[in-house]
Amino acid sequence: MAGEATGAVEAWLKAETPRLLDELFAFLRIPSVSTDPAYAVPMRAAADLLVRRLARIGMQDAHLLEGGGHPSVFAQRADVPGAPTILVYGHYDVQPPEPLALWESPPFEPTVRDEKVFARGASDDKSPLWIAVSALEGWLAVHGRLPVNVKVLLEGEEESGSRSLPEILASHRDLLAADVMLSADGGRFRAGRASVNTSLRGVVSLEVRLRTAARDVHSGRYGGAIGNAAMALARLLATLHDERNRIAVAGFFDGLHRPSNADIASIQALAIDEAAFLAEIGARLGAGEPGVPVLEAIWFRPTVEVNGITAGYQGAGGKTVIPCEASAKLTCRLGPGQDPAQVAAAVAAHLRAHCPAWADLEVDTPNDGAAAYAVPENDPFLAAISRVIADVHGEAPVRVGLGGTLPVASMVKLALGLETVMLSYAVADERAHAPNEFFRLASFDLGLQAWTRVLPELAAARR
Amino acid sequence: MAGEATGAVEAWLKAETPRLLDELFAFLRIPSVSTDPAYAVPMRAAADLLVRRLARIGMQDAHLLEGGGHPSVFAQRADVPGAPTILVYGHYDVQPPEPLALWESPPFEPTVRDEKVFARGASDDKSPLWIAVSALEGWLAVHGRLPVNVKVLLEGEEESGSRSLPEILASHRDLLAADVMLSADGGRFRAGRASVNTSLRGVVSLEVRLRTAARDVHSGRYGGAIGNAAMALARLLATLHDERNRIAVAGFFDGLHRPSNADIASIQALAIDEAAFLAEIGARLGAGEPGVPVLEAIWFRPTVEVNGITAGYQGAGGKTVIPCEASAKLTCRLGPGQDPAQVAAAVAAHLRAHCPAWADLEVDTPNDGAAAYAVPENDPFLAAISRVIADVHGEAPVRVGLGGTLPVASMVKLALGLETVMLSYAVADERAHAPNEFFRLASFDLGLQAWTRVLPELAAARR
Repeated sequence: MAGEATGAVEAWLKAETPRLLDELFAFLRIPSVSTDPAYAVPMRAAADLLVRRLARIGMQDAHLLEGGGHPSVFAQRADVPGAPTILVYGHYDVQPPEPLALWESPPFEPTVRDEKVFARGASDDKSPLWIAVSALEGWLAVHGRLPVNVKVLLEGEEESGSRSLPEILASHRDLLAADVMLSADGGRFRAGRASVNTSLRGVVSLEVRLRTAARDVHSGRYGGAIGNAAMALARLLATLHDERNRIAVAGFFDGLHRPSNADIASIQALAIDEAAFLAEIGARLGAGEPGVPVLEAIWFRPTVEVNGITAGYQGAGGKTVIPCEASAKLTCRLGPGQDPAQVAAAVAAHLRAHCPAWADLEVDTPNDGAAAYAVPENDPFLAAISRVIADVHGEAPVRVGLGGTLPVASMVKLALGLETVMLSYAVADERAHAPNEFFRLASFDLGLQAWTRVLPELAAARR
Repeated sequence: MAGEATGAVEAWLKAETPRLLDELFAFLRIPSVSTDPAYAVPMRAAADLLVRRLARIGMQDAHLLEGGGHPSVFAQRADVPGAPTILVYGHYDVQPPEPLALWESPPFEPTVRDEKVFARGASDDKSPLWIAVSALEGWLAVHGRLPVNVKVLLEGEEESGSRSLPEILASHRDLLAADVMLSADGGRFRAGRASVNTSLRGVVSLEVRLRTAARDVHSGRYGGAIGNAAMALARLLATLHDERNRIAVAGFFDGLHRPSNADIASIQALAIDEAAFLAEIGARLGAGEPGVPVLEAIWFRPTVEVNGITAGYQGAGGKTVIPCEASAKLTCRLGPGQDPAQVAAAVAAHLRAHCPAWADLEVDTPNDGAAAYAVPENDPFLAAISRVIADVHGEAPVRVGLGGTLPVASMVKLALGLETVMLSYAVADERAHAPNEFFRLASFDLGLQAWTRVLPELAAARR
C-alpha cells in the first residue's frame, strides 16, 4: 500500500511537521466558539485562515459557503478523470472553554506537556482537520496533483447544532456532489488499539426555563407559601428518569432499534473492564440503565442529559432568597432510528405535563438536532478505510461506535445522498468538550500517514 | 402620649429630616455585604460610620465589639436612675445585590422614585436602623438626655447567619445587660395596617456539593454510562418534598409546635385574600402545604428552600457536557420549637441516605443558624410598643408574625436572658433580599414619631 508515490509524500510531511505544528498552534489560538455570539470575530478569523491555507497549498475555488450562520469553508481539486470524488469534512469551531478555572494552561494558548498539545479544540476537531488538510498539501507539494478527486467542506457550526448546514448543503448541491464523505471528525476508541468508526449517535437539544413569581423574594417573607423555581426545576428534571436510571418520557424510545449483530459482536470482542473504563474519568458504575453494557450504552442507547442549571444565588456565602426563575440546558443523545424532532417533542410534552400549575414553563428547541448514523456494513469506502488503518497500525481495526454526533453525517445523507466514513486521529480520552482538552502529538504522525495513504486507496474503491 | 417633651423632639426631627435622609443615603452607598469576603473594606467603613455618628449625637462609649467576624457597633447612654435599660438593635450589613441586571437603578446608589428610596439595604435594615438612631439624636439634641437608659447594638453579620454574635454576647455580658431588647429590624405587615411583630421564624443553612466524576466529560463520549452531577443533584433535591409539597425529611418536624391561639386568631382576623396576596409578587397558590393558610405557612411553618443551584454550562448557546459537579445552597426556615442543629442534621442525613452510590456528596452547615422566637404574650414592653403603634397609627395593631429571622432574638434570650420586642418601619413588600429593594419615605416620618414616643413609654414599663 505504501507505494513509492505515497512514501515520498510521507517523507515530505515528516520533514515539514514542525512547520505544520506551528501553523496548527496558530489555528488553536483562535477562540472559534460557535455557540456564543461574543466570539463572532474569531469565528470569522478561523474561517478566513482556512480559506487562505487551502488556496496556498494548491486547492482551487477556496471560498466561504454562507448559510445564515457561521459559514463553511469550501475548496476543491477535482482533476482526476475516472476517479471517485471524496468530500473531506472537518469543523473549525470549538466548544466553549468554561469552566476556565479548571484549565492548567489557558484554553487558547496551545501548550505541550508529555507529548500532548493542550488547547480547546486540540482533539475536537482542529488537529484532525489539520492532518487532513496537511495530507492534501503533501500530495500537492510532492506530486502537483491529488490521487483522487477531493472537495473540502469545513464547517463552523458543528458544536452548536449545525444550524445552517442544511441550508448550505441544499444551496450548493452540485458544488458538493461527491461519491462519499470522508470525515476527519470522529474518534479512535483507544490510542493503542486500531479501530474504525462505523456509527454515530444523534443529538437534540432543549432549553427549559421555569418561573414561579415576578421577582426573587426574601425566603422568610414568603417561604412556605409560594413555589421556588430552583426546587421546582429540580423536581421537574427528576421526573425524566425513573429510580432505576431509565428514561421515563412517554414516546421517547419510539423508532429506536437495537445495534446490529456486528456491533454487538464488537462490544463483546472488546470485552472492556467497565469499572476501569469509567474509573479513568473518576466515575463509577451504577448510573446507567441496568443490564446495558457500558459500550452499548454510550454508542447506541439514547440519553437525556442536563448540561447546566442556572438558578438563584451562586456567589460566595449565602443569600436567603426564593429564586423566581430557573433554567436548564438539556441534550438528548439519540440511538439508531429515533427522530430528533419527535424526541424533542416528547421531552417537551413530558416537562409540560409534569410542571405544576403554580409555575410557568418555556421549552425551546434551539436547533433541529441530528439523527444517529451508521455506515452500511458492506460499504466499499469503509472497506478501504479499514485496509488503510490495518496497514498503518499493523492490526485489523475493530468496529467501534461513536457516542457523539456528527450532525453532518445524517444531513449529507439526506441532502446529497452520501454515506460518511470516518478517519479521525482524535482519541476518546482526550477531554473533548472539557477542561484540559488535548491531542497526542504521536497521533499527528500516525494521522498524516493514514491520510496520505487513504487518498490513493479511496481512488480505487467503487460502489 | 405625645407630651410636650416628645412633641419638641418630633418637631426637631421633622426640621432635620432632609439632613437625616442625606446621611442615610451616604450610609446606603456603602456596599456592606457581610456574606462575601470581597466586601470586607466597605463592611468596616459602614461600622466606622456608625461609631462616629453615635459619638457625634452624644451617645457614650461608642466602639466596635469584636467577635472574630464583622464587628458589632456599641454605644450607650445609661444615666436615668430607676428607669429600665433598653438594648436597641439593628444591623448594618446587607444581602448581596445580585442579580445586578434586574436593578432599575444601581443597588448602592440610593435613588428616589415615587416617594420611595431604592437601594440594597434600604428596607433591611439601614433605614429602620437610621430611624432608631435619629430618634436618639433628637432626644439628645432637644433635651440633652434620653428618657430611658439606652444601649445600642448594631450587628454586622445578620445577613450571614450572625456567626460571631454569640461570642460577642458572651464576652460582653455586663456591657450589654438590659431589661429588654428593642429591635429596629422586623417588619410591618402592610403599609396601611397597624401591626406589631410578635414572633419570628428561625433559620438554618446548608451547602450541598455533589460529584460524579473527576472532570466534566463530552456527553457523547460517556453519556448513558455515567452519572450526571446536575441531574443527580436535581433528583436528590426533589426527594426533600413529597408530591403534595410537604417536607419528606425524617425527623425534620421534631419539636415543632403549633402557633398560639392568639396567633391563629390574628390570622383569621386579618382574613387576607390569599390569591391576591401572592399575586402581588406574581406568584400563585398551590405550592404550599395543602390546607395550611398562607399567613400560617409564612409565619409559623418550617420550610426547605433552594436559594441557588450551580451546575455545568450556563453561558450562551449550548455545551454538550456532562457536569461532574453540582452544588446547591439551601436554607430552612424553622417554626416554633425546632432546633436548628437538629434540623440541619436531619436534612443532611436525608441527603446522604438518598445520594446514589455512584456520586459523592458533601453537606456543610456554614453557621449555627437560629431558632424561632416569640415574645411572651403578656410582656409589658410588648404592651408598651403596642400602645405607641396605636397612638401613631390611630388604630390598635394586629399581632403579626415575621416569616424571616432575627438570629439575635434567640441569641440574646439565651446569652442575656432578654426578650425582644420589635419596632421596625420596614414593610413586608419592600423587596428585601431582592432586586429593587426600597423603603417608603413616608415610613421614615412615621418611624421617627414612633421611635420618639416609644422611649418614654418604655421608661414607664416594668416587668
